[in-house]
Amino acid sequence: MNYSAILEQIQTDVAPLLGQGKVATYIPALACADPHDFAMSLQLVSGESYHIGLHNKTFSIQSISKIFMYEMALNLFEESILGRVNVEPSGNPFNSLIQLEYENGIPRNPFINPGAIVIADMLTSYFKEKSLRSIIDFVQICANDASVSMDESIAESEHSNGYRNYALANLMKSFGNIKNDVESVLNTYFNCCSIAANTAQLARSILHLAHQGTDPLTSLKHLSPEHTKRINALMLTCGHYDASGEFAYRIGLPGKSGVGGGIVTTVPSIMSIAVYSPALNKHGNSLAGTKALELFSKYTGHSIF
Amino acid sequence: MNYSAILEQIQTDVAPLLGQGKVATYIPALACADPHDFAMSLQLVSGESYHIGLHNKTFSIQSISKIFMYEMALNLFEESILGRVNVEPSGNPFNSLIQLEYENGIPRNPFINPGAIVIADMLTSYFKEKSLRSIIDFVQICANDASVSMDESIAESEHSNGYRNYALANLMKSFGNIKNDVESVLNTYFNCCSIAANTAQLARSILHLAHQGTDPLTSLKHLSPEHTKRINALMLTCGHYDASGEFAYRIGLPGKSGVGGGIVTTVPSIMSIAVYSPALNKHGNSLAGTKALELFSKYTGHSIF
Amino acid sequence: MNYSAILEQIQTDVAPLLGQGKVATYIPALACADPHDFAMSLQLVSGESYHIGLHNKTFSIQSISKIFMYEMALNLFEESILGRVNVEPSGNPFNSLIQLEYENGIPRNPFINPGAIVIADMLTSYFKEKSLRSIIDFVQICANDASVSMDESIAESEHSNGYRNYALANLMKSFGNIKNDVESVLNTYFNCCSIAANTAQLARSILHLAHQGTDPLTSLKHLSPEHTKRINALMLTCGHYDASGEFAYRIGLPGKSGVGGGIVTTVPSIMSIAVYSPALNKHGNSLAGTKALELFSKYTGHSIF
Amino acid sequence: MNYSAILEQIQTDVAPLLGQGKVATYIPALACADPHDFAMSLQLVSGESYHIGLHNKTFSIQSISKIFMYEMALNLFEESILGRVNVEPSGNPFNSLIQLEYENGIPRNPFINPGAIVIADMLTSYFKEKSLRSIIDFVQICANDASVSMDESIAESEHSNGYRNYALANLMKSFGNIKNDVESVLNTYFNCCSIAANTAQLARSILHLAHQGTDPLTSLKHLSPEHTKRINALMLTCGHYDASGEFAYRIGLPGKSGVGGGIVTTVPSIMSIAVYSPALNKHGNSLAGTKALELFSKYTGHSIF
Repeated sequence: MNYSAILEQIQTDVAPLLGQGKVATYIPALACADPHDFAMSLQLVSGESYHIGLHNKTFSIQSISKIFMYEMALNLFEESILGRVNVEPSGNPFNSLIQLEYENGIPRNPFINPGAIVIADMLTSYFKEKSLRSIIDFVQICANDASVSMDESIAESEHSNGYRNYALANLMKSFGNIKNDVESVLNTYFNCCSIAANTAQLARSILHLAHQGTDPLTSLKHLSPEHTKRINALMLTCGHYDASGEFAYRIGLPGKSGVGGGIVTTVPSIMSIAVYSPALNKHGNSLAGTKALELFSKYTGHSIF
Repeated sequence: MNYSAILEQIQTDVAPLLGQGKVATYIPALACADPHDFAMSLQLVSGESYHIGLHNKTFSIQSISKIFMYEMALNLFEESILGRVNVEPSGNPFNSLIQLEYENGIPRNPFINPGAIVIADMLTSYFKEKSLRSIIDFVQICANDASVSMDESIAESEHSNGYRNYALANLMKSFGNIKNDVESVLNTYFNCCSIAANTAQLARSILHLAHQGTDPLTSLKHLSPEHTKRINALMLTCGHYDASGEFAYRIGLPGKSGVGGGIVTTVPSIMSIAVYSPALNKHGNSLAGTKALELFSKYTGHSIF
Repeated sequence: MNYSAILEQIQTDVAPLLGQGKVATYIPALACADPHDFAMSLQLVSGESYHIGLHNKTFSIQSISKIFMYEMALNLFEESILGRVNVEPSGNPFNSLIQLEYENGIPRNPFINPGAIVIADMLTSYFKEKSLRSIIDFVQICANDASVSMDESIAESEHSNGYRNYALANLMKSFGNIKNDVESVLNTYFNCCSIAANTAQLARSILHLAHQGTDPLTSLKHLSPEHTKRINALMLTCGHYDASGEFAYRIGLPGKSGVGGGIVTTVPSIMSIAVYSPALNKHGNSLAGTKALELFSKYTGHSIF
Repeated sequence: MNYSAILEQIQTDVAPLLGQGKVATYIPALACADPHDFAMSLQLVSGESYHIGLHNKTFSIQSISKIFMYEMALNLFEESILGRVNVEPSGNPFNSLIQLEYENGIPRNPFINPGAIVIADMLTSYFKEKSLRSIIDFVQICANDASVSMDESIAESEHSNGYRNYALANLMKSFGNIKNDVESVLNTYFNCCSIAANTAQLARSILHLAHQGTDPLTSLKHLSPEHTKRINALMLTCGHYDASGEFAYRIGLPGKSGVGGGIVTTVPSIMSIAVYSPALNKHGNSLAGTKALELFSKYTGHSIF
């Protein structure tokens, strides 16, 4: 397939959408993103890669980091995670406290904020003061690129504007589902959200999820095939907050979005994809990025269904 | 792959589970099902089929009929359905009224009761008094078997115990999302739920969903490839009520369950599957049937992820 | 106290508000009310009465009828009502289904629609086909006026637009909290809502609630002192849907409103009051009527606190 | 009326209930209360007082302190409070976050935790570092007793177990409804909850609420008559969390309970009452205390209705 031509067509098609939607404004460091930015990278399991737009520009990966955190938790704790975080779509926005109160502090899934905070708590219990370092290490190894790192100004902003996340963490702690102190757990969580990468790095970093958990280029096994399947299933059912169903319906590929404007997607056995455009639709997912993936699925016929 | 041996292994494995769980008791006709019954049928796109257990025993397909109703609506109304029924997981039980009140009478998806009732209303507007006949015709054609039909005693029971469904339909009508009179719409809905089939017929009837919408054996095109992808996506995200996420996570195949104890699943490009065991788990899905499909996915490695 | 002068002052004060707010439009018979209408009647336990505005104009008392229904139920069933209808404020609109689903079909109180529908069911079990006649008789005796009756055009309108109430009744029936058939129960309920009276009749009809349950003019005992206290308590905590707290806070008198634009209030030991103005505020209570009662409380100092 | 005899009768009547229910266990300092303790004090506006049981034993007044905080806020900010805290019953437990999320961080009323936290924030904005001192001063003046003070061990316990309150405060801050830093606001809030008093002091401290806001014995005016009426109205509609309606229904007097086992009540124009028994019913209100007040209302006929 002529992926270069397809990417060019997509860039042309989404051009009129750039600038529609709204960039996230809850922290200053995100608010200053340029809503006209666009980038898309394809990383094939064969090693080839294709890029278009600003694929060298780094941005805040935000919730996309929830994938890596859950991978690490699966490796360490396996099925025992399920007692503390479910794997069901929530049907609610990413930061809702409502279900948490009805359901005794057990988050619906690890891809909404409360779920990722519990995962951060589990990693904190295990790695202690080395939690953050361990997570960054894992992301760098997955990306095969030691330059991927945190953006400290973002982390600080998250921290000083993170009242909703403090509310979530304290509510779960009142139910006994946070074991460490709230400050440490959120420190890890906020820093993970502030990891910065460009689309090329990001597509590369999840390539193993399109290849049964093993990086086809380095042969490093990051995850078992069974767990890889589960991560992909979670991305499909829960990867886009309360628009997950629509993403599955229109695009039919496992994916995960972040409010920084990034989305990653896998085409199992074939490739991983990262797209970036910071202006968001009403569900908090990249507006042009979502459209680009819909067009990609349409032009290539790639879909898991 | 030796599917016969795999089915035998599964039958052995699930034997201890038969009788666990509870058969649906809300209508007498379902309550008298034998909780020890078990059947499983594989229908390959190549034409081969494999069966184990009571695959000639008919049972009430219940919510599995929601697939066929939505297929017909997609054929007739295409994207315009989305204004009246969404495609998001609900995170609530199949018959909940809560989201409906918060969300102005628009059901979350067509695979929970209120969604299917709206679809029944759309079909009633189109087919009028021939609605039921048209739906049965479509199921028979899909199954390539004119003997598939309704169980009138079930339909009558549904009707006289359907207070929750009357509540749902009236609530949606108060929001203007039911156009016909409630009695006619529910008559269609209840009768569709009462369609009876055995696992062999049921697997056969959804074979086209594993083959881009076209029956590979009769070459009849029941659905476009694009719509087929969407039905499969919906089954994955919404096919098992508030346990849809777990089904995707553990099994990784699009499926749809009914409270009669049936579950259908597709393995895109390869086969369709139907399983039956009437004792249900706490989410209202067949307990042994769900386990059988999990084992099937494990033994064969079949998964969309 | 010069009640005539106070009424005149109130009429002057509320004049600019008449026409603000919106008349109920869900049934045609209510929608044609003149939003500029205003009437207020004071009925003292001493026998004197004071009126201003259109106090001879009859209007649909709507939810005010819930008082009489609950009085009859208290007389017949006493504390045993509490197993089927609670006495707590709901914090939700009058026709919400949400709490009902969370709380197993037990309504929060008898002054919201589902609560009154359960009371109608209890009266139907007792009076059978004479239910409606018995309720009308009770209202006429309380009003000491045999001319108070139903407005059949309203009753019919309620019936043919009552989808939300059908939803409530069917939902409660699915929980077993409606014993008779939904149609009979709602027939009684809708007809009670359609009782028509003017403010003079209405104030007279609840005079006993300001006098320990006994009409001070006819000496007829309609209710025990203990039950009278409970009705007044319910009016204070639950009489104005989700604006009950504000009515208590600003006015400090037990009251009950109806979407027809009427409000009744008691000043225990002193008088009963009825006010009418059909344009409603956002909570569904008479806008000018609520203001008139606030001014009355302010000018007279009458308050239970 | 022979109040001494009535108190003796009540003590006899509630004796079998002592030890039923459960003392609050969320902080160690409350958990060690003796569930058999009982005390009741009547403080008449005439100056007489009557006591029975352990009326010299101090206990943690907990949520009863919300009355004093709201009085101070009414004096300082009057109607402008209403933009930040409503006056509606919540229909939910005292520490629920659910309505807060649906209703943009505006608490339903000042007598549930989030409402009192907003009031603490308003007082903090005004009094700054003198907030706590100012509140204690006000309580001491109301009680006419400089010995009323905080129990620091309780305050510390509240603080180190107050995750739910941290969640509430942070959630409201995310909506902009907390202006000061969460730590300062909760410090004031937790310390207010830890005020300790015996029933004699407590009854004395709210005597002005039974006398139009002015202490009849010292002639000090603590509150305007209009605001006094509003406090009483709030106690009636919102004073007992999600059992407020039942308290009004059975007892018919304005009251406020605390999880320490205290309840205060006013009989407007006549007296104030405090009762203490630390074992709580399922709604978090003193079990024997509630019963004692129900008997008091029955034996004396005192009720506002």
